[in-house]
Amino acid sequence: MSKLDPQKINNLVESIVAGYRVEPQEALKSFAQPKRDAIIRIILMLRELLFPEYYGQRHLVTTAIQYHIGDLLMHLHEQLHEQIILALEHRPNLNAVGSIADQADEIIYKFLSTIPELRSTIELDVQAAFDGDPAAVDKHEIILAYPGIFAISVYRMAHELHLLSVPLIPRIMTEYAHNVTGIDIHPGATIGKYFFIDHGTGVVIGETTTIGDNVKIYQGVTLGALSPREGQNLRGVKRHPTIEDNVTVYSGTSILGGNTVIGKGATIGSNVFLTKSVPAGTKVSIKIPELMFKGLSPDESSPEYMELDI
Amino acid sequence: MSKLDPQKINNLVESIVAGYRVEPQEALKSFAQPKRDAIIRIILMLRELLFPEYYGQRHLVTTAIQYHIGDLLMHLHEQLHEQIILALEHRPNLNAVGSIADQADEIIYKFLSTIPELRSTIELDVQAAFDGDPAAVDKHEIILAYPGIFAISVYRMAHELHLLSVPLIPRIMTEYAHNVTGIDIHPGATIGKYFFIDHGTGVVIGETTTIGDNVKIYQGVTLGALSPREGQNLRGVKRHPTIEDNVTVYSGTSILGGNTVIGKGATIGSNVFLTKSVPAGTKVSIKIPELMFKGLSPDESSPEYMELDI
Amino acid sequence: MSKLDPQKINNLVESIVAGYRVEPQEALKSFAQPKRDAIIRIILMLRELLFPEYYGQRHLVTTAIQYHIGDLLMHLHEQLHEQIILALEHRPNLNAVGSIADQADEIIYKFLSTIPELRSTIELDVQAAFDGDPAAVDKHEIILAYPGIFAISVYRMAHELHLLSVPLIPRIMTEYAHNVTGIDIHPGATIGKYFFIDHGTGVVIGETTTIGDNVKIYQGVTLGALSPREGQNLRGVKRHPTIEDNVTVYSGTSILGGNTVIGKGATIGSNVFLTKSVPAGTKVSIKIPELMFKGLSPDESSPEYMELDI
Repeated sequence: MSKLDPQKINNLVESIVAGYRVEPQEALKSFAQPKRDAIIRIILMLRELLFPEYYGQRHLVTTAIQYHIGDLLMHLHEQLHEQIILALEHRPNLNAVGSIADQADEIIYKFLSTIPELRSTIELDVQAAFDGDPAAVDKHEIILAYPGIFAISVYRMAHELHLLSVPLIPRIMTEYAHNVTGIDIHPGATIGKYFFIDHGTGVVIGETTTIGDNVKIYQGVTLGALSPREGQNLRGVKRHPTIEDNVTVYSGTSILGGNTVIGKGATIGSNVFLTKSVPAGTKVSIKIPELMFKGLSPDESSPEYMELDI
Repeated sequence: MSKLDPQKINNLVESIVAGYRVEPQEALKSFAQPKRDAIIRIILMLRELLFPEYYGQRHLVTTAIQYHIGDLLMHLHEQLHEQIILALEHRPNLNAVGSIADQADEIIYKFLSTIPELRSTIELDVQAAFDGDPAAVDKHEIILAYPGIFAISVYRMAHELHLLSVPLIPRIMTEYAHNVTGIDIHPGATIGKYFFIDHGTGVVIGETTTIGDNVKIYQGVTLGALSPREGQNLRGVKRHPTIEDNVTVYSGTSILGGNTVIGKGATIGSNVFLTKSVPAGTKVSIKIPELMFKGLSPDESSPEYMELDI
Repeated sequence: MSKLDPQKINNLVESIVAGYRVEPQEALKSFAQPKRDAIIRIILMLRELLFPEYYGQRHLVTTAIQYHIGDLLMHLHEQLHEQIILALEHRPNLNAVGSIADQADEIIYKFLSTIPELRSTIELDVQAAFDGDPAAVDKHEIILAYPGIFAISVYRMAHELHLLSVPLIPRIMTEYAHNVTGIDIHPGATIGKYFFIDHGTGVVIGETTTIGDNVKIYQGVTLGALSPREGQNLRGVKRHPTIEDNVTVYSGTSILGGNTVIGKGATIGSNVFLTKSVPAGTKVSIKIPELMFKGLSPDESSPEYMELDI
């Protein structure tokens, strides 16, 4: 066992606690934040509420499902109430009327009222994934396994809370989905129906992005901002692109800038770097960089360097 | 505390439950799916079975290890049995004979019989990582820390279940590894021995990919399909490339298409975009895009724009 | 229920246990490794110690915080002691004096003494994220949600243990952060103050990288090695680049090689592939690959192929 020297432990505690108090006012205030762990539990409860047949803790008898959902909803309400109050105390909504508890109740009721519509919308996203991916055997596989569906589901829930002006929590939600999936969607982005993200690792969708219906994007796509070195001066400005309906963006492509509009039905190939608009119905691809081939096998008649177009 | 209005809660429950029943037949059927959480627990038990010295819950006395393994195996058998039955009920194997419970027992026995060979195969993958990475101090570090080893281990287990025609579960397994590591390997892919994925975030290996022995790939490599917009029409078709023995593929490279073959011993550089075959022993690299250099320091004698080959 | 055939289970246990004993000496030794799960719990305790106001399990009264911190520190000490002893038994430090338990106590005391300074350093990283990201509303959001801050925090703690010559544990720590965030920082890297990683998925920072103060990097940036096929022969050699103060590196860029130095104040654009040094104050960008535009809409007057500079 460890020989704990009480004096040493005491010194450590004192110096660590002293470190918290550099700005005592700040420190005191910040001891009541929304808790990340609680918000993750809320996400998992919301996922169960959306798809109880996939994520419930027990097998459900359909005829008795209202009891289970009622119980889940009461528990979820309690947890949301606690976290939203913490968030509103931390960053009050200056336009709101009534006590913070009343504001929280109002927000929760409005938010939970969107669940049936959210389920329908996410079912369309599942359909888009099924229609678009030959590796998908059925829609159950997509709901249970596809990271894009998880990231989009969490985004759609967080976006509703964002529209209800809840501070902090929406971003914690989408960053949790980012942790799980590698897909980084800011809760402020606006995304239409029948949206599919395939594979998804490395996708970034910025705060002021607008995406239409029936859009499909692949791993490593960035819908980002230009010149982010200007930092806080750009808060609130439209800095991210607009992607219109029926657009496909292939892997590794970056589309940047608040004035950049990808017109309806356009297809943007892999590894493109775009900072200007593209008209509707256009296909954009890079001229693939010239490749150099160097034969190594002694039995190959290939020249030392052989340039091919591929 | 939150003031819960019973009528409001009741309304929410009713509208949410009504939302589940848009397609009642469908909803009823789907209330018995394999559970993702249970499958994650199975993965962790399998990992302990493969490497009890690294992932066991307690320190093991080697002489008594058979009791621990026996206990673990009984528990694992029970969990696998439950989930495989759910999967087979969900999507029956039309060629199978016997009850679903008997089919599950048969599958589990065959699957668990592969554990010793899986351990040997994964030990070779660990050796490949050690031999290939100067940052690796020993093989223990690789087993305990390297994401590539986790992703490959889960893939190799899921692939065995895929070969035994288990529905849904293999994909849930590899997508869990994708969540954890950012490495997306479809359980249908075929991968040889002594395989190393370094760093790994963003790697995608599609369903019909074939990879030989002693292959090494880096972060951001896609072994993917062309024209995925054709969707479900392409189910079952060979859409992903073939990578022969002793090939290295560096970071950020995409190799696409079912007829694309990378011949033995080839080396494919970083950021290459390949849709055609490459002969054995060839080195392929992009002609690095021209760079533009703009000097900013007043004390630099560099011209405004200076083009360098690097 | 599953019909377990005792003979079959017995056969499985025997063959699996036999598989562990291919190298009995090795197997015996390795039954006492640091445990990954325990190290993850240590990371979460350390995070609470750094930022109790965000990650504590309960609401804290500031005036009583020393009791909570004292309790947390005792628990953390015990866990660290156990894991560090396992690590030192596994790979002894040949230059150390005293028993392994004494070495562990010494290391833990030195390590925990750095907590106040680590908190200050990480607060500067939070400030850098706030100053650099217009989507950040306040610093609380950054601490609670930003993956870059989590990855950098875990790296900074692991780096201290690395400097104290603790084997295995630092790498397990940073690879856990890699799992969570997609950001892969080797604990051996040297990183200055006021460091910001935005979005972060796919970032790789190799073992012998040196990074100055006020550096900002984006998703998909690799600070890596050249010719990694040489493997273990390169152990300990400086293989990764040096990034001086005030440098920005945009998304998708690779900077490779131990002799590559990015001079003070340089800006490296997106998707650059650099293997040579860049002088201070230089802006480097790729000549964006030529794009091909193909109009599809019948109502567009655009020519079949239209080449634009963008």
